[in-house]
Amino acid sequence: MVNNNIFYAQSGGPTAVINATACGVIQTARQKNEIGTVFAGKNGIIGALKNELIDTAQYSDTAIEQLKYTPASAFGTCRYKLKSLEEDRATYEQLIQIFKNYQIGYVFYNGGNDSQDTSHKLSKLSKEMGYPLSCLGLPKTVDNDLFGTDCCPGFGSVAKYIAISTLETALDVKSMSASSTKVFILEVMGRHAGWIAASAGLAGNNLESAPHIILLPEVPFEQKSFLIKVKQCVKDYGYCSIVASEGTRFANGKFLSEGTSSDAFGHVQLGGVAPILGALINKELSIKNHWAVADYLQRSARHLASQVDLDQAYTLGQQAVLRALNGASDVMLTIDRIQQSPYQWQIGEIALSEVANKEKKLPTDFIRADGFGISEKCRDYLLPLIQGEAYPTYHNGLPEYVKLNLETMKSAV
Amino acid sequence: MVNNNIFYAQSGGPTAVINATACGVIQTARQKNEIGTVFAGKNGIIGALKNELIDTAQYSDTAIEQLKYTPASAFGTCRYKLKSLEEDRATYEQLIQIFKNYQIGYVFYNGGNDSQDTSHKLSKLSKEMGYPLSCLGLPKTVDNDLFGTDCCPGFGSVAKYIAISTLETALDVKSMSASSTKVFILEVMGRHAGWIAASAGLAGNNLESAPHIILLPEVPFEQKSFLIKVKQCVKDYGYCSIVASEGTRFANGKFLSEGTSSDAFGHVQLGGVAPILGALINKELSIKNHWAVADYLQRSARHLASQVDLDQAYTLGQQAVLRALNGASDVMLTIDRIQQSPYQWQIGEIALSEVANKEKKLPTDFIRADGFGISEKCRDYLLPLIQGEAYPTYHNGLPEYVKLNLETMKSAV
Repeated sequence: MVNNNIFYAQSGGPTAVINATACGVIQTARQKNEIGTVFAGKNGIIGALKNELIDTAQYSDTAIEQLKYTPASAFGTCRYKLKSLEEDRATYEQLIQIFKNYQIGYVFYNGGNDSQDTSHKLSKLSKEMGYPLSCLGLPKTVDNDLFGTDCCPGFGSVAKYIAISTLETALDVKSMSASSTKVFILEVMGRHAGWIAASAGLAGNNLESAPHIILLPEVPFEQKSFLIKVKQCVKDYGYCSIVASEGTRFANGKFLSEGTSSDAFGHVQLGGVAPILGALINKELSIKNHWAVADYLQRSARHLASQVDLDQAYTLGQQAVLRALNGASDVMLTIDRIQQSPYQWQIGEIALSEVANKEKKLPTDFIRADGFGISEKCRDYLLPLIQGEAYPTYHNGLPEYVKLNLETMKSAV
Repeated sequence: MVNNNIFYAQSGGPTAVINATACGVIQTARQKNEIGTVFAGKNGIIGALKNELIDTAQYSDTAIEQLKYTPASAFGTCRYKLKSLEEDRATYEQLIQIFKNYQIGYVFYNGGNDSQDTSHKLSKLSKEMGYPLSCLGLPKTVDNDLFGTDCCPGFGSVAKYIAISTLETALDVKSMSASSTKVFILEVMGRHAGWIAASAGLAGNNLESAPHIILLPEVPFEQKSFLIKVKQCVKDYGYCSIVASEGTRFANGKFLSEGTSSDAFGHVQLGGVAPILGALINKELSIKNHWAVADYLQRSARHLASQVDLDQAYTLGQQAVLRALNGASDVMLTIDRIQQSPYQWQIGEIALSEVANKEKKLPTDFIRADGFGISEKCRDYLLPLIQGEAYPTYHNGLPEYVKLNLETMKSAV
């Protein structure tokens, strides 16, 4: 049978569980006679453009199983956005030619918004060129901002990490607050959507519990009300736990981080909303504070992955193979919530044309009235996603993460 | 029997396992008829000075058991250093009077350098005053810089957190490096001693493995050789993983963090060596980088505690009671390494007068010749301390950390 190979690529920022999707694809493909081999793109779609494909047949079943427990992008990933078909038709044609050379009939693109857009264009052009590819988008993003799916694999694990880190650091600063540090600020990812910052809200369920203040990109930062709230928390509870999205911005849309750092370091972009807030609290309230910037710590923290998140990531990969064999194409697979409590979910599909380049922000009714926290509705949405502890195995005190040899094919099959 | 109560206080920065020491004290005391009750100081020694003692008899056995799994300082802690006996005799006398009022015969002070010093002075003065107290210092510090003990409870868990975080973030940046971020900088604690930064070295065991560069307070920062090393790593391995101690300093002793931030923010102390290094790499090498500042995340991360660390913390508390009953006084309990491999340890004792106000830095032969990594000797020392995963129990996706009611005694017994 021809054109029975799969091309699988990872795209954009890695997550704690994206390799579980790869594992689902490869394990399922190995069970199916109708599938030849699974090729992975080295460093994502760039691997296809550079004719750098990795034959995953070289990996043992054990190594593939270990992908489930390994964070980051095992085959490498990239930030590379193809232009429109009109502007960049040659590149798309080049990709399709490569797929032809490797007898690839199925393209699974595991990424965020841009990836869904690319998959859609590939699907469209491949038909025009008489080499129809079964293109499936597999959602992945810690930001949880993809349209059309109830949640995005990768997010649940970050949410768990942030909720637990908020809980732990709040206990720390609280226990110090009588005589020392009274405010702790944790900066988290989410430049445009506040899902990750919102997940900190799971650490406590009333005004008295940490986090006392969540700063979301969806709520304009207002210095005066922020400082009043910080002061009030310190007065009422003895301490104040703050979780700030990196995308915290003023009403005019300017990020807090860009605001101060360009003045301060002669146009060197420092980044970091947490140090800015810390300096502000020092200056205006003279309250001793500490801050942390989680950055890659949060999205690579496989040691604390959510079992639900892992299961969803794996099932996506598995279902991609099964559905492609059943003729699915030009769709993104979705995670659909079919019951809230007890939580039940299933895999669904949505046309790629519907999801491409759309961004899902935190809905207004997920934000507490004062803008500094999450609503019960948001809590109900988030809580199922952090359930279960999917620990990796350990050896000699450290997790056993698999490192694959990324040697690429010498030439097309 | 009179004066058979224990006063227990936590001091300085919390750790992931300091409450396990409290648990060891209380559980063991409950088994001993010779002991009355264990009073805990609310917010450390300040609790004694303010006559704010907590009767731990109010807590159920279950709550006490949960202390083993709860980070931070369950009874509150403080940064408060008593002056010398000559300068501040009245305060010491006041403390001893409080202990007398509560029929306290045993004082267990769980802290770092300052605490050992205070314990020693209390011991000395109590004898002079004819109310001899059995004063025991119980070591605790994430910095691992206490003299006289092979390691300090609290450190093993931070070491494990930092080693794993280094491993995870390195996988992340490596998988992005072909087309995006190539350098990742993780800032860790340790203002004067590089033990925590050194523990990152456990993530890899050759030059090619992350972390490629560890910046220690013990090794003067030299901008030129640092930048050459970063550039070379990116050239050779495609990426560069850097772990920087917050105490990274120039040859003249000036911290990198104070250097730049005071210029930049008009004398507002921003802190953060990671953003400084990131800006430097941007400016001098134009290499895209990301950075994280772990701050309280690292020392409160009970979710990732080391089993060895937990066992040592608990045993210290247990042994404090047993040894105090056997007449031990004016000593700090120590963790002694009796065998390297397989690792074996036991509790020892050292006179408080010998340990007070001494600081243990990373020995020169623990540092790699190039100054950017750790030696095999250091690895051999560190590795046993991160063994075993002492997971907390979880409920609804979050760890079950106990929150104690900290109501204090209305008056002396």
